[in-house]
Amino acid sequence: MPTLTETDVRAQLDRLTKPPGSLGSLEDLAARLCTIQQTLRPVTRPRLLALFAGDHGVVDEGVTAWPRAVTAAMVENILAGGAASSVLARSTGTLLRLIDVGTQAPARPESEGYRCARLAPGTANLAHQPAMDVDLFEAALAIGASEAARACEHGVRVVAGGEMGIGNTTPAACLAALLGGFSTAAVTGRGAGADDATLARKRAVVERAVARARPLLARQPRLAMAAVAGFEIAAMAGFYIHAARSGLTIVLDGFIATAAAMVAEQLAPATATAMIASHGSAEPGHAPMLAHLGLSPFLDWRMRLGEGSGALLLMPLLDAAAAMIRDMASFDSAGIPRA
Amino acid sequence: MPTLTETDVRAQLDRLTKPPGSLGSLEDLAARLCTIQQTLRPVTRPRLLALFAGDHGVVDEGVTAWPRAVTAAMVENILAGGAASSVLARSTGTLLRLIDVGTQAPARPESEGYRCARLAPGTANLAHQPAMDVDLFEAALAIGASEAARACEHGVRVVAGGEMGIGNTTPAACLAALLGGFSTAAVTGRGAGADDATLARKRAVVERAVARARPLLARQPRLAMAAVAGFEIAAMAGFYIHAARSGLTIVLDGFIATAAAMVAEQLAPATATAMIASHGSAEPGHAPMLAHLGLSPFLDWRMRLGEGSGALLLMPLLDAAAAMIRDMASFDSAGIPRA
Repeated sequence: MPTLTETDVRAQLDRLTKPPGSLGSLEDLAARLCTIQQTLRPVTRPRLLALFAGDHGVVDEGVTAWPRAVTAAMVENILAGGAASSVLARSTGTLLRLIDVGTQAPARPESEGYRCARLAPGTANLAHQPAMDVDLFEAALAIGASEAARACEHGVRVVAGGEMGIGNTTPAACLAALLGGFSTAAVTGRGAGADDATLARKRAVVERAVARARPLLARQPRLAMAAVAGFEIAAMAGFYIHAARSGLTIVLDGFIATAAAMVAEQLAPATATAMIASHGSAEPGHAPMLAHLGLSPFLDWRMRLGEGSGALLLMPLLDAAAAMIRDMASFDSAGIPRA
Repeated sequence: MPTLTETDVRAQLDRLTKPPGSLGSLEDLAARLCTIQQTLRPVTRPRLLALFAGDHGVVDEGVTAWPRAVTAAMVENILAGGAASSVLARSTGTLLRLIDVGTQAPARPESEGYRCARLAPGTANLAHQPAMDVDLFEAALAIGASEAARACEHGVRVVAGGEMGIGNTTPAACLAALLGGFSTAAVTGRGAGADDATLARKRAVVERAVARARPLLARQPRLAMAAVAGFEIAAMAGFYIHAARSGLTIVLDGFIATAAAMVAEQLAPATATAMIASHGSAEPGHAPMLAHLGLSPFLDWRMRLGEGSGALLLMPLLDAAAAMIRDMASFDSAGIPRA
């Protein structure tokens, strides 16, 4: 049981020199941060975006508007500093580390910002066979966990998971339907810009894959999840589980990151209690997925890019929330009369 | 006519390595910033919050839950670094300067962060007489204008106006009703926490004051505005007008700042085209006031504190938007295939 409850935090917020509640969502953000960190003096740095990349066999089904080669090209772009995630990480003072868990990108030397941990050059095509077997699923989880452990060793206090993988809204939709009990139609959207024909193909694929996986869920949940997962999604789930166990604060990104959070919650219940939902995605399934995890997003900015971009935007607002509760004077300390 | 249109900016945003439109409101923010600054390489620093403070004779009517002495105490608190505005300015890398245009606070030595330009120890009680005469109204506008000029001299590129003044939602509601043509009921809310009886008194005062001012508006607009204004509100209006004319980008705060923006727009049409609305306030009148100015807020965080706090929260998101359009690679430069 936590020692510091939300009620305690709200009481402290009401001692500060402002009308009670007048900072609205900033107070909610501070309350969430303080209850996760169990302190009235929360910290928001150092912080890290662990960005997991993987390719997807299901791209062969025509479920996305983008060619598969874009995953590899975007890995290069992220590491060269030109992607949205690279730019927003710099702008918000967030470390970025890209972990290739299974792309078709060319090998390159490892560095502080890059790890090659490729399990395969992409998953199998989940429309026709399991995306991966349970061993690969476990291996992806373990890679994610090792990244959380590494972050802890480096003194990181706040983490976000991000992803890059052309086609990955398809496995994310499958996992959401499988684990949240949602209809496949409710969680299958246009991703990075699918047209009507692409969306129709995607829906049929998701419907079929989930129908195969569902009967396995009760007795062989890892087999069921592995059948419709992505390497980067499983790695993110392992990252979240280990981060939460290690006392890190997790800032959750959008649709795919939330599908990974559902995997994490399935494997390690209460992982979501360490999470702050950054934004509500333009992808229609995202809102019920967040609700399923008991989370409310802070930004409603119609974003649908991935790469951890929404989580990065929340980082400076996390700084502001932490500074507010840490550094504002109280009515008593400042000698100010109350209403 | 601007040379760089929003269409031009959107075209540039669509060249960057992301699905078109996938950064949602961050793209809207970048588009607004670029069209205001007339460049695809916008700047967001140095930036300044000019915080104008004033007292209000109408507090004698029992229109607020807070004692008048809080204005002076909060001036001290802001300058001591313990107020929400002080903390959020530090957290977001924003300079803060407090200008006393008419409080009952004790005199103190001037500094980089503080100017004493007190026109009177508070306005007259607008329930029974004009809050100020036209000379004082002009003097307040001039103080605000001089602060914008000073900001320009110091190389500031982005500004926000903030306010502190117990009772100032009452003149703000009057100005909104007067200049926007809204019913007084629609723009008179609970401010910093009025109970039902206080709100009823406030509504009656606003109704009466606006009824007296309205007939003057067409032929003697300055007289009409002066009758229901506050010193800090008029100063903020002058600040906005001069800032916009000088090519500064203005980040607009909440309810009272927006009432000042309506004064500015009345006196100098198109001032609002230099503005970015930071947030939609919990105060019910705020949404129609923003719409009246043609502005859409970026945060919906139920804030109602003032002091420029909402504008400060948008600052790091402005940094992110500027970095995104300035620094992201294009599909062509990164050699990435498109959808």
